[in-house]
Amino acid sequence: MVSNVDISLMHRLADVAGEEIRPFFRTIMDIDAKEDATPVTLADRNAESAMRKLIEAEAGADGIHGEEFGVKNGASGRQWVLDPIDGTTAFLAGRPIFGTLIALLEDGFPVLGMIDQPILGERWLGAVGQGTTLNGQTIHARSCPDLRRATIATTGPHYFSVEQGDRFMALAGQTDHKRMVMGGDCYNYACLAGGHIDIVAEAALKLHDYAALVPIVEGAGGIMCDWAGEPLHAQSDGTVLALGDPARLEDVLEVLG
Amino acid sequence: MVSNVDISLMHRLADVAGEEIRPFFRTIMDIDAKEDATPVTLADRNAESAMRKLIEAEAGADGIHGEEFGVKNGASGRQWVLDPIDGTTAFLAGRPIFGTLIALLEDGFPVLGMIDQPILGERWLGAVGQGTTLNGQTIHARSCPDLRRATIATTGPHYFSVEQGDRFMALAGQTDHKRMVMGGDCYNYACLAGGHIDIVAEAALKLHDYAALVPIVEGAGGIMCDWAGEPLHAQSDGTVLALGDPARLEDVLEVLG
Repeated sequence: MVSNVDISLMHRLADVAGEEIRPFFRTIMDIDAKEDATPVTLADRNAESAMRKLIEAEAGADGIHGEEFGVKNGASGRQWVLDPIDGTTAFLAGRPIFGTLIALLEDGFPVLGMIDQPILGERWLGAVGQGTTLNGQTIHARSCPDLRRATIATTGPHYFSVEQGDRFMALAGQTDHKRMVMGGDCYNYACLAGGHIDIVAEAALKLHDYAALVPIVEGAGGIMCDWAGEPLHAQSDGTVLALGDPARLEDVLEVLG
Repeated sequence: MVSNVDISLMHRLADVAGEEIRPFFRTIMDIDAKEDATPVTLADRNAESAMRKLIEAEAGADGIHGEEFGVKNGASGRQWVLDPIDGTTAFLAGRPIFGTLIALLEDGFPVLGMIDQPILGERWLGAVGQGTTLNGQTIHARSCPDLRRATIATTGPHYFSVEQGDRFMALAGQTDHKRMVMGGDCYNYACLAGGHIDIVAEAALKLHDYAALVPIVEGAGGIMCDWAGEPLHAQSDGTVLALGDPARLEDVLEVLG
């Protein structure tokens, strides 16, 4: 069960991550910089280190699964999953729609999730059974009575295998083409939770990419699963589907094949 | 020649447009709303009306070419080109990376351009021969000695014809795949002018989509042209290429075919 202590810690994790990330945003990168010396890598590592330190100080029995520094086993059955910068290409391109993702898992399932956009000062928080907020205000996904009017989003076709790309295009073809948006990473799920996007479909995501999104989307009334309709957990296959209106799940899974 | 009077008017045009646009951002849209009753259409029209009114009051001899309300001929040889919301899908999706585009053309060529992001309070201004600024601070595109390290951006593959998509992919294949970004509309050109993106390639753009971008990109030291390398003007074919480093133009045009 999620407690106020967990929520408070999550806020402070996002705070310390943002402090490490902001100084690196839109710094001019030497185009020949090695991968481990790019602004995004430095920001990523500093932010994750700061978050791990805080978790170890305040919740030492919990496990940690971080994008940058891997897994530290815990004894509590709980695990903090950290992605300091989801949307590294957006970060490097100077676009403030990347996010810091923080999730709390219990027995492998995400129960609390946060997307923090440290440049814009936007913070989405979702807790199982407790709703979703943007900067403290409750938000809701919208209903979507007709797939043909749906707005679909994905970060880019270059993240799909050929077979996944065909399945995505079959789904996109049933939606409103004029409103399809590309790019966005975690930010698309936040916009879905706020009622502005109806479907996000992606593939090749890792636990740290999607764990925080589940409580946010589902707390707002939406649903998340893999492309076979199975709930997302630590061993999912990397295909991710988010719908603002769970009533469209059956139609969407049928089209996705 | 661009005067301070023109620059002052352009700032006030963006101010009045922003006032009309902000109230509609992230309002919940009825998914069945007719195209002319969506928040973005209302914001678009109100913003363009406010801008046209100001131009008519202060520069009555100039022509106007607006995305929403068309062309009004002028007697001065000058024309204001207006796109109140470039990135309507981003606007509808709740992503604050759309922009208000304002250009001043003399004899059909853009000499002054602005991208205004009214939610984030970011304003890029470019003037031929006078440099480019973001919120008053001078910015520069970066050099790109090696195409294989370049970051390429485009709003989405669904805006290309099949033939254009093949040409884009041939170009993208020569760049750094890991850093390719999708989505973004005008915002990508602003990020290119700031030194964070190296190449933007798009197609099917109209005068109101690209006119404002040319002085911003070129004022920052970059170059814009169509996919054949010809300068952009009122009768261009809609293919648009922006490079942060003009030294890569020849290589890029060769790959684009």
